[in-house]
Amino acid sequence: MNHTLRSFASDNNTGVHPEIFKALDKANEGHTIAYGDDPFTHEAELQFKKLFGKDTEVFFVFTGTAANVLSLSQIANPFHAIICAETAHINIDECGAPERFTGSKLIDIPTRNGKLSPQLIVPFLQSFGFEHHVQPKIISISQASELGTVYGSEEIKALAELAHSNNMFLHIDGARIANAAVSLNLPIVEFTKKCGVDVLTLGGTKNGMMFGEAIVFLNKSLAENFKYIRKQGMQLYSKMRFIAAQFIAYLKDDLWLSLASHANYMAQKLEKGLSEIEQIKITQPVEANGIFAIIPKNIISNLQKDYFFYVWNENTSEVRWMCSWDTTEDDIKGFIKVIKNKLNHA
Amino acid sequence: MNHTLRSFASDNNTGVHPEIFKALDKANEGHTIAYGDDPFTHEAELQFKKLFGKDTEVFFVFTGTAANVLSLSQIANPFHAIICAETAHINIDECGAPERFTGSKLIDIPTRNGKLSPQLIVPFLQSFGFEHHVQPKIISISQASELGTVYGSEEIKALAELAHSNNMFLHIDGARIANAAVSLNLPIVEFTKKCGVDVLTLGGTKNGMMFGEAIVFLNKSLAENFKYIRKQGMQLYSKMRFIAAQFIAYLKDDLWLSLASHANYMAQKLEKGLSEIEQIKITQPVEANGIFAIIPKNIISNLQKDYFFYVWNENTSEVRWMCSWDTTEDDIKGFIKVIKNKLNHA
Amino acid sequence: MNHTLRSFASDNNTGVHPEIFKALDKANEGHTIAYGDDPFTHEAELQFKKLFGKDTEVFFVFTGTAANVLSLSQIANPFHAIICAETAHINIDECGAPERFTGSKLIDIPTRNGKLSPQLIVPFLQSFGFEHHVQPKIISISQASELGTVYGSEEIKALAELAHSNNMFLHIDGARIANAAVSLNLPIVEFTKKCGVDVLTLGGTKNGMMFGEAIVFLNKSLAENFKYIRKQGMQLYSKMRFIAAQFIAYLKDDLWLSLASHANYMAQKLEKGLSEIEQIKITQPVEANGIFAIIPKNIISNLQKDYFFYVWNENTSEVRWMCSWDTTEDDIKGFIKVIKNKLNHA
Amino acid sequence: MNHTLRSFASDNNTGVHPEIFKALDKANEGHTIAYGDDPFTHEAELQFKKLFGKDTEVFFVFTGTAANVLSLSQIANPFHAIICAETAHINIDECGAPERFTGSKLIDIPTRNGKLSPQLIVPFLQSFGFEHHVQPKIISISQASELGTVYGSEEIKALAELAHSNNMFLHIDGARIANAAVSLNLPIVEFTKKCGVDVLTLGGTKNGMMFGEAIVFLNKSLAENFKYIRKQGMQLYSKMRFIAAQFIAYLKDDLWLSLASHANYMAQKLEKGLSEIEQIKITQPVEANGIFAIIPKNIISNLQKDYFFYVWNENTSEVRWMCSWDTTEDDIKGFIKVIKNKLNHA
Repeated sequence: MNHTLRSFASDNNTGVHPEIFKALDKANEGHTIAYGDDPFTHEAELQFKKLFGKDTEVFFVFTGTAANVLSLSQIANPFHAIICAETAHINIDECGAPERFTGSKLIDIPTRNGKLSPQLIVPFLQSFGFEHHVQPKIISISQASELGTVYGSEEIKALAELAHSNNMFLHIDGARIANAAVSLNLPIVEFTKKCGVDVLTLGGTKNGMMFGEAIVFLNKSLAENFKYIRKQGMQLYSKMRFIAAQFIAYLKDDLWLSLASHANYMAQKLEKGLSEIEQIKITQPVEANGIFAIIPKNIISNLQKDYFFYVWNENTSEVRWMCSWDTTEDDIKGFIKVIKNKLNHA
Repeated sequence: MNHTLRSFASDNNTGVHPEIFKALDKANEGHTIAYGDDPFTHEAELQFKKLFGKDTEVFFVFTGTAANVLSLSQIANPFHAIICAETAHINIDECGAPERFTGSKLIDIPTRNGKLSPQLIVPFLQSFGFEHHVQPKIISISQASELGTVYGSEEIKALAELAHSNNMFLHIDGARIANAAVSLNLPIVEFTKKCGVDVLTLGGTKNGMMFGEAIVFLNKSLAENFKYIRKQGMQLYSKMRFIAAQFIAYLKDDLWLSLASHANYMAQKLEKGLSEIEQIKITQPVEANGIFAIIPKNIISNLQKDYFFYVWNENTSEVRWMCSWDTTEDDIKGFIKVIKNKLNHA
Repeated sequence: MNHTLRSFASDNNTGVHPEIFKALDKANEGHTIAYGDDPFTHEAELQFKKLFGKDTEVFFVFTGTAANVLSLSQIANPFHAIICAETAHINIDECGAPERFTGSKLIDIPTRNGKLSPQLIVPFLQSFGFEHHVQPKIISISQASELGTVYGSEEIKALAELAHSNNMFLHIDGARIANAAVSLNLPIVEFTKKCGVDVLTLGGTKNGMMFGEAIVFLNKSLAENFKYIRKQGMQLYSKMRFIAAQFIAYLKDDLWLSLASHANYMAQKLEKGLSEIEQIKITQPVEANGIFAIIPKNIISNLQKDYFFYVWNENTSEVRWMCSWDTTEDDIKGFIKVIKNKLNHA
Repeated sequence: MNHTLRSFASDNNTGVHPEIFKALDKANEGHTIAYGDDPFTHEAELQFKKLFGKDTEVFFVFTGTAANVLSLSQIANPFHAIICAETAHINIDECGAPERFTGSKLIDIPTRNGKLSPQLIVPFLQSFGFEHHVQPKIISISQASELGTVYGSEEIKALAELAHSNNMFLHIDGARIANAAVSLNLPIVEFTKKCGVDVLTLGGTKNGMMFGEAIVFLNKSLAENFKYIRKQGMQLYSKMRFIAAQFIAYLKDDLWLSLASHANYMAQKLEKGLSEIEQIKITQPVEANGIFAIIPKNIISNLQKDYFFYVWNENTSEVRWMCSWDTTEDDIKGFIKVIKNKLNHA
């Protein structure tokens, strides 16, 4: 495998943005108290409160899986059910960590575009009070979704209302919430807290950080005792300043939004380029930084040698291409050129 | 809290060693495949095999707690018992994560000096085959121990023999194994693999890394399926190159041993200085980088204002002082001067 | 609620068969060693070996949920997946106990008739070796199924072959396996062990016992250490003789088959009677002791007052009627009469 | 093993009391709704409310281990600690089920006589609010204790006060609470609810029932959602009437107290007989139905052939003898005679 190969495989094949790297460097001075009782962490917490309001409580962890699992664990009991899209990261890509750690059942619902709606969910809101069945307690959505689509704020509001009217919570897996924010062109508070979202994760690693994800409780009372859950969940970082410093830089001057904006823009460029190629069929609206397309099977493995990426569905020959904060216009041009070339010689 | 306050609180109050920071910088170039299938990870794995032999399998995780819990989980079933010292990190300082994730019971044994011995353990090797009782399966020791003492290789050998003769495993929590290696003046393989140790963790964070711990299976067959345990345990790092690159630098030219050597040396300096002060009683042999001492109660809080540290035992007025890779001779001198001063004015 | 109301709600609304009750009485004499080291348990174990062969290991537990969960837990790791029908008891009716206790994910597959087939399963046998995804390890089927259908021995063989060729196990939830045996008119060994089934549960409570279910490992090596799983799973019965004595009576002179035969026969009678009623549509083949039918919505609640039963699907107005070892011809006649009456006055 | 051998091994080597057996017979008539919505269960619940007051919620389960584990699970989170005596059944005899199912750590405290006291517990009430340590949440005591001793009501009150003043709960493992009630000569409410106990288990199996234990929440609000915990804990009995009917008979006319009274009285008889034998040293006050004694090692195995019992401590040659509701004066006389005989011929 060629180390310098450019890749559309995942937004986590990228490195660290220079500003964030600089912040790590600056934080690397002298001693600080460990485990989060340090000025960097206090400052980062403040920045999250600025984004989401004073009634916010934020906790930093290492991985997106941990951010999802620990936040779900905080608001569900083992006899509860977590409703999610069939394509949800928590359902597919976390090796069963949600079931393992929360003890809860996931009820996964097929969707057309990776997005849940009240209409899809209502048939599963059954059996409340019936002890033989798991009790629905959380609706978990991914924003942006794993299929590169984005929920509008009205859609989120409707899901929050559905959740709350059934004594449930609305949870957002926000590994790519920056891409959604850019896509919606709305302050993040507008399509989370103000729509009634209870808990969200806010991703850093896929969008220019070295590591670090935030769990954001949009209602302090939901965060009670969560510090023990994080520690027992093996996610309390001793040298916390190094996550905190990254988040400070990430949020400063909306760097996170700039990076996501670039990634989304590159995805649109790529979409445009691809749309001119007859043999390629884009399968999902390109609303964030991912593109899903059905392409001729016979060019796939050849194409992967030049630009690595994953096949999403072997049967339908659907592939996923992810753009990142560091994708260049040359990457796009080069990739399209190579595709055309492969198609011509296939 | 003064950000620039020097501290003897913990070796994780320190930052990142410049060589390791440089390695992070160098690794931050272009794209690499995520999740460990990258050249940095391959190289780091190679370095571990050089240290421990070809039959080694290594996995990187974020935290020491995770390294312990996941490695224990790999070799124990929930109906097993894990035998450890009462003072063990897994018993005291991981908020019950071992019980939570392994499902197993910890049998903790009081010790004089933080070290287990066959004599202490044998009375607990009972009830094999009796289904009402948990079944002892792992002896877990900390090297160096939480009380700053170090197991000799003969002691480890004896524990491994005891374990194996009872169809059990010997596990080492090596958060500070570098300090032990320096103290023993032995290649690490000599007091681990060659003594019969089955699994160990090898710490980076406390000794100059930004983050990263290694789980080392000294017998490949013990590592079967562990990749799923790590992923389901929420510890699979997408941008793995950034742990791997640190470990490469950490092991290169024995940097890890130099750093530990310095920390141990500073602890000896501190011990020497303290030994001249009548009102202070060192309670444990200083074999690694920690010093335990009983000091007059009335100076503690005052002293903590100048150099932060933790009280180990409120009742006996015993405190813990940890030296680090970045402790300076000035820190030691200054600290001793301040102690003397506080004692004179108490 | 009228205590003496006859019911088609469930086969567990019945009491205990007189022969089994007598066996309890006879076992209630003097002292025996607790926890299964008693002559009744030894004798019952022997009877199971007679049914299934010498390489069998059997364990008794209290509930069907426990029988399923503990047996699955024995052969799956938390990172494994258990494949089952969407209608499976383990998926729907155990309040998430399988996820809670095994830590594994259930992959539930929609079926037409409650039965899985290789064709339905194969698309889910993916991602072997890919650590982000749970690893399929068990195919679990219910025999008879929750929809009253029965797998033929060729169907089971095909599933076992599919499982084994993928390094997986075939598990049977046999809460109603007696009804299946009668339906197939085959010795139980013929459609379990001889077809390659690895583990099954064999129900007693629904078919005339007071309590008690058996977990049958059809390969002794699969039972290793299971005694600890049962004890830790809170299912080791101190006065084990009272489960064992029931099973001895249950198996003696094929009482279990007679009881199931009666229940199946009653179901056929009921089906015959219903088939003459135009407004009622039987939805599943009646192969065991359950009948599924779509009936006019407006008679349901009225009908339940005379003969209690459950609505299976509110939306389609589908109901479930279960016959039992103690259902009488009068029950059938009376029930059909009442249905006709309600329909006439609806 | 001789089936008719009389035994002092355990109070669960006995059978079922005739009155309780009769109740099972009477309950075995016709159909009832399953899972506890039946007249027997309603009546049994009423009887518990009569014993403990209206603010009581009771749930029936199969085993003592389940009663303990599920009730602890209801009032502890996984990051909590459960404080108990070193000799506690939950600590020793449940194969780690409490850790496995609650996820919590047990902190076990050595005692002289199987009983905890505020003085013993206080040193462990530390680290509240410190996320690295498990958080003490439950004090669990056994009444009568595993060493045959009994807490006075003042002692229980003191423990409840200690618990509540630290925002903790007091839990009683009441597998032998009938023996304690007789010993104290107090209505059960006096030394439970009125002393501030939060939750208790009330045993049936060891004192004349076939199976069945009760979990009694002495404050309804503590029982919220517990029905799901029981079901997910694999302990919801379909034919609930058969536990309920036993408990109705058990409580009727204080049968449970009569049986325990007899067992306690037999223990006193045995103690009296043994006290005349010089070579035998009773090691614990005989306050319930168990006797602990150090006896000459050389007679043990010989003695066990005539009357089966368990060695409590191999090292000290301490044995445990349990009397039961069905122990006869002849058993006592015969046993003492045999002991004397063995001692003479040793």
